[in-house]
Amino acid sequence: MDERRVLPAWHTAVVPRTATGESSIARAVRVFAAFTPDDTSLRVSEIARRTGLHVATASRLVAELAAHGLLERGPDRRVRVGVRMWELASRASPTLSLRDAAMPYLEDLHAVVGHHAQLGVLDGDEVLFVERLSARDAVVNFSRIAGRLPPHISSSGHVLLAHGPPDLHERVLGRPLERRTGSTITTPGALRAALAETRRRGYALLPGHVHEEAAGVAVPVRGPLGEVVAALSVIVPNDGRAQAQVPALLAAARGISRALAGSRPGS
Amino acid sequence: MDERRVLPAWHTAVVPRTATGESSIARAVRVFAAFTPDDTSLRVSEIARRTGLHVATASRLVAELAAHGLLERGPDRRVRVGVRMWELASRASPTLSLRDAAMPYLEDLHAVVGHHAQLGVLDGDEVLFVERLSARDAVVNFSRIAGRLPPHISSSGHVLLAHGPPDLHERVLGRPLERRTGSTITTPGALRAALAETRRRGYALLPGHVHEEAAGVAVPVRGPLGEVVAALSVIVPNDGRAQAQVPALLAAARGISRALAGSRPGS
Repeated sequence: MDERRVLPAWHTAVVPRTATGESSIARAVRVFAAFTPDDTSLRVSEIARRTGLHVATASRLVAELAAHGLLERGPDRRVRVGVRMWELASRASPTLSLRDAAMPYLEDLHAVVGHHAQLGVLDGDEVLFVERLSARDAVVNFSRIAGRLPPHISSSGHVLLAHGPPDLHERVLGRPLERRTGSTITTPGALRAALAETRRRGYALLPGHVHEEAAGVAVPVRGPLGEVVAALSVIVPNDGRAQAQVPALLAAARGISRALAGSRPGS
Repeated sequence: MDERRVLPAWHTAVVPRTATGESSIARAVRVFAAFTPDDTSLRVSEIARRTGLHVATASRLVAELAAHGLLERGPDRRVRVGVRMWELASRASPTLSLRDAAMPYLEDLHAVVGHHAQLGVLDGDEVLFVERLSARDAVVNFSRIAGRLPPHISSSGHVLLAHGPPDLHERVLGRPLERRTGSTITTPGALRAALAETRRRGYALLPGHVHEEAAGVAVPVRGPLGEVVAALSVIVPNDGRAQAQVPALLAAARGISRALAGSRPGS
């Protein structure tokens, strides 16, 4: 469950709820949040354990969600996220519009640079990767599609933080900054300096901050009003040559911005 | 709302419901189904109209879904599908695993063939396209990511029907077959013959069946047990040369099958 989303005050007053005081939509969100990229199929008992719901309650909820195709149950009785859930979430998603505008440029970039090319957006206080193209023999990378990274460790995070709102800076700088490698930035002062440098240079370059062997390079993607809507990045070997990727990234980001400006306003 | 999914009998007995007898999850599904690729942002009044809910009910439901990040409201008060909905649906989706396994091969195919390369699965009685790569100057194509086509008109549909269960054949053959062009197959006898031919040849080739100017060519993608899990297809100009794409498609489908076999079992 995403604890960062605070329910507004009206919420308790008007939503139909079960005897325990939680709406079935809130419970359904907890069920979906129990699945992860490493656990794509779960038994009902495991769903109950992860969500804190009684097994009988979890079982009824899984059955209702499965009746709508939002969950699916395999012949092994294990539960998976349903194709219908993916369809409802994807077909009108602003994420998909961004991805659609970006894809041809991401492909070109990936063909030239090899390794990983990816597109990240800010959601809550984290980087959410909405698209990634990877070579079969690419250098290590810890991002995944629909995966998240804390913003202070990834080049995409630096770009999104550098152009993000001041209250986001305060929240991120006010929390402990998790260390991943010897190069990870873990003090507020060093992070502030790195973000200023990212703004000044127009790109973020983080060699070995997530993994010793990989370097991330990211640039901002701007929307029609000049606002930064995403970060475009590549992950390459940490061999001192990552900066050479910057011109190709900047050119691809301009193409994506142009494609976004050409799409329908207000939709 | 997806009327094809029949709620089981226990459903009425145990699910908490509102005064009108419909659960809030059923209503939430109706709200998400109101959004389409052409209408990615809606006013609450329009959501009420499309779902048949009272405006006050729709307004409360939208507010609850927005509190969980499943919907988002823009500064213009228009409602969109939320990034959190996409994340919950995508990060553990079997659709994403298939797409992940297929993507490098889809890219190679797209680089060689140009135009559109796409991956479709059967959901309900229709083809659901889970991935598509398009050239910027590609021939017309009516599929989209998370879009659907009836199976009798598209080459992917023929592949999925040809290898699908007999009850699916009965349902599809028992319904009126919609005409899109002069070439569309609209009689059960012609469709049966085309499906037998697809099984025999190992691919489906439909010139001008969806649009006069485009030809679709599709081949089956097999899972670890030899079962057909998806259709891999390209859309090219309808100039009599579409069959030349078959070897590249067959090679890519083998690569995807190998990648699927290499992924973890039971997940």
